[in-house]
Amino acid sequence: MVKEKIGITVSKKDDFSEWYTQVVLKAKLADYAPVKGLIVLRPDGYSIWESLKNTFDRKFSQNGIRNGFLPVLIPESLLGKEKKHFAGFNPEVFWVTHSGNNEVGDKLALRPTSETLAYSLYSKWIKSWRDLPLKINFWNTALRAEIKATKPFLRTSEFLWQEGHTVHTTKEEAENEVFKILEIYKNTVEEELAIPVLIGKKSEKEKFVGAEYTTTMESIMPDGKALQMGTSHFLGQNFSKPFDVKFADKDNVEHFAWQTSWGVSWRLIGAMIMVHGDDQGLVLPPKVAPTQVVIVPIYNSDDDKKRVLEKTNEIKEQLETTQIRVHVDDRNEISPGYKFNDWEMKGVPLRIEIGPKDIQKQQVVLAKRYSGEKINLGFEDIGKIDEILNEIQVSMLESAREQAKENTKNISGYSEFKEKMQTGGFFNSFWCGKPECEEKIKEDTGADIRLIPLDDKNKEGNCIYCNEPSTITPVFARGY
Amino acid sequence: MVKEKIGITVSKKDDFSEWYTQVVLKAKLADYAPVKGLIVLRPDGYSIWESLKNTFDRKFSQNGIRNGFLPVLIPESLLGKEKKHFAGFNPEVFWVTHSGNNEVGDKLALRPTSETLAYSLYSKWIKSWRDLPLKINFWNTALRAEIKATKPFLRTSEFLWQEGHTVHTTKEEAENEVFKILEIYKNTVEEELAIPVLIGKKSEKEKFVGAEYTTTMESIMPDGKALQMGTSHFLGQNFSKPFDVKFADKDNVEHFAWQTSWGVSWRLIGAMIMVHGDDQGLVLPPKVAPTQVVIVPIYNSDDDKKRVLEKTNEIKEQLETTQIRVHVDDRNEISPGYKFNDWEMKGVPLRIEIGPKDIQKQQVVLAKRYSGEKINLGFEDIGKIDEILNEIQVSMLESAREQAKENTKNISGYSEFKEKMQTGGFFNSFWCGKPECEEKIKEDTGADIRLIPLDDKNKEGNCIYCNEPSTITPVFARGY
Repeated sequence: MVKEKIGITVSKKDDFSEWYTQVVLKAKLADYAPVKGLIVLRPDGYSIWESLKNTFDRKFSQNGIRNGFLPVLIPESLLGKEKKHFAGFNPEVFWVTHSGNNEVGDKLALRPTSETLAYSLYSKWIKSWRDLPLKINFWNTALRAEIKATKPFLRTSEFLWQEGHTVHTTKEEAENEVFKILEIYKNTVEEELAIPVLIGKKSEKEKFVGAEYTTTMESIMPDGKALQMGTSHFLGQNFSKPFDVKFADKDNVEHFAWQTSWGVSWRLIGAMIMVHGDDQGLVLPPKVAPTQVVIVPIYNSDDDKKRVLEKTNEIKEQLETTQIRVHVDDRNEISPGYKFNDWEMKGVPLRIEIGPKDIQKQQVVLAKRYSGEKINLGFEDIGKIDEILNEIQVSMLESAREQAKENTKNISGYSEFKEKMQTGGFFNSFWCGKPECEEKIKEDTGADIRLIPLDDKNKEGNCIYCNEPSTITPVFARGY
Repeated sequence: MVKEKIGITVSKKDDFSEWYTQVVLKAKLADYAPVKGLIVLRPDGYSIWESLKNTFDRKFSQNGIRNGFLPVLIPESLLGKEKKHFAGFNPEVFWVTHSGNNEVGDKLALRPTSETLAYSLYSKWIKSWRDLPLKINFWNTALRAEIKATKPFLRTSEFLWQEGHTVHTTKEEAENEVFKILEIYKNTVEEELAIPVLIGKKSEKEKFVGAEYTTTMESIMPDGKALQMGTSHFLGQNFSKPFDVKFADKDNVEHFAWQTSWGVSWRLIGAMIMVHGDDQGLVLPPKVAPTQVVIVPIYNSDDDKKRVLEKTNEIKEQLETTQIRVHVDDRNEISPGYKFNDWEMKGVPLRIEIGPKDIQKQQVVLAKRYSGEKINLGFEDIGKIDEILNEIQVSMLESAREQAKENTKNISGYSEFKEKMQTGGFFNSFWCGKPECEEKIKEDTGADIRLIPLDDKNKEGNCIYCNEPSTITPVFARGY
């Protein structure tokens, strides 16, 4: 009875959406805030974000990027300075109109993104080529009122993210930065979250409002829908001109600077839940798991208890010397079976069971969360657990690659396209490049161009919609 | 000429307020945002905050505290649930009334502090004694519209801080937590920022609205004004009752929980600037300095340049192996003298000068920022620089203690009190405990009770205001 009540009550296959929400709430990653569309992160959820943040910070820093802080309030007049950009965000902006009982003058927007604010400052800070490149990242939240149904991590009116904003003397240097960042995004998501991603460019229709072009990282979810996992934009001089971001070059001539902006959000956590989770609950990749190993000591008599707990603590200490994050579940009056379910729900990658019989045999039982596999491990091999965690990390990525592959199809006929898009997936199909075809496909099937691969060359075929000769092979999918 | 333009143009002694603002802006720690009362942190400023954050995170974690995330929007109805608390914050709350062009229903407050939001969630999360203690910290910002003049780090309408919120089964455990946190605050500020602090309790008049009592950490600034550096509140059951934060004890009887909340903000950076800075600019304690050592290579000929830069890089690499944060200023066409001024302005704790003559003598010249002292250091002793940085850290705290001591006086006569309060300082004086006397002193002199020392016992005297016998010896000062 207890098990049913605390466990996930639907299967991932039957009701993906309900399954997802239950995992988020029951694994205690997040909870709903009192304002519709907003969520709270509980320590296990926030810990995953902190782990990603640390990895990104290390990589950003190696790339000469430093962190800064921007306030959340942006005056309406400033937000409106780049027209297309403003029009894109305006419908979803939260507006502050009062402080205390007094009206504020110029209405204040809660930051939907910080280009306008950052660049009004950059224009003051940058005088000459010596001040460039300027590369600053901001760990903050963005606020965009969601009118559609909200979903923890995937669609919320406030979300945790990082936004990077760089300024360069040349177009080439700025474009290099765009792709360097995209590469950091890709390898971090694959290595840390064990999620394979595709990278490419967005179409004109789908690019960031105000960008010259947008590069993106996309993954296919088990329900066949695509998730945008992060974007890196080449802004060209689209912002440097209205915001007057200029520098004096070595010859003392003033030029407008070249800019980039880029961001990933806690959506990445949502993707991790969807890609790896199962009917028992969350499945965490070891690298980002708040607890990597849980030890459940098993005993009946007081005598056994003493011996088992002694060994348990010995193992715990041994694991901690190699920086493994380990927790001992020594709760009384709770059965081992209940504990197993509890930690499976929370997605802890590795469980160690140890009872009197194991001690006799000088071994523990290891249970791998992602595969359900159970193996015996001799006490002398406890040092191998680090290696086993690494193997799990690698296997989870491989298995996710398999899953993604099954969800990816080459499709050349529109009726097949329309029919199969019902069940979703990434579809590789030709496109002539005309926005009208892109629009029509969206109308008919709900599918967007998720990305155009970077190495999209030397192929020829016919547009999936209009049948005209074409050389572009975007990846189509319905998105979150 | 150039020097005058970029340097600080007033002396700390003559115009403290203007000096402070110039240091903040010219050392590139922060800048003004377009909305009055808001500031932006540039990388050197944010890096100091990150350094403090890392230290606090380590200590919080050792104390069983984990981090979480709360959204910035709180519905008016929730904020108003604890009446006194709401009345205290109401005049300075920013209100969101619209999203896009639509009115939001219940007005939304930008978090002035998160007690109400956190505890409405805690009441859902806590069922039994097994869920306690619950100890969560949030790194975020708080927003309180400042009507008075604003000052970077000291008085801004949005500020970076951490707010911790803990829940306990017993009053004793909660009170212990309050003081454990206060101790963490004190030793972090003293060890990392080299600022001595006093700790104690606030008077009833000065306590946090909604707390049973407030403990505080206070420092005296060079201009004789006191700065509140952090507070740790015992909330008793004042919030657990209206917010229904209850737990079933081992006997299955429900009880209201006991709570604490506590926070420090980027004010600490403001204090650091004020306490250590001088007429040349910022002076950074080595532990929090983004750059701890700057190397300025000096040469005239190309031949010298090659040799000097070679040695410079060798020293840089050697220092980096011991995790010292080092920067080489090899900018061309800028004189060594200009560079010296530049890095002095930015407060880098240690400068290494190296020229052809130094190489001949197998030595470098070290210049300590905080004292101006210059010493020669043989190449073989480069490994001692770590030790020298530690000595600087310790000396800075000692010298700040001296400064604070000079600014602290025992005063027993009210006319002396009134006269000397003009120039400021911490005043130890007796107080009878009556709010009326506290009020009158404030009216006459502008001084508050900053704190009542924790070990305030066994002393007898007469109230500085009404002359009645009294046993309480608060620390009075005018505050920021």
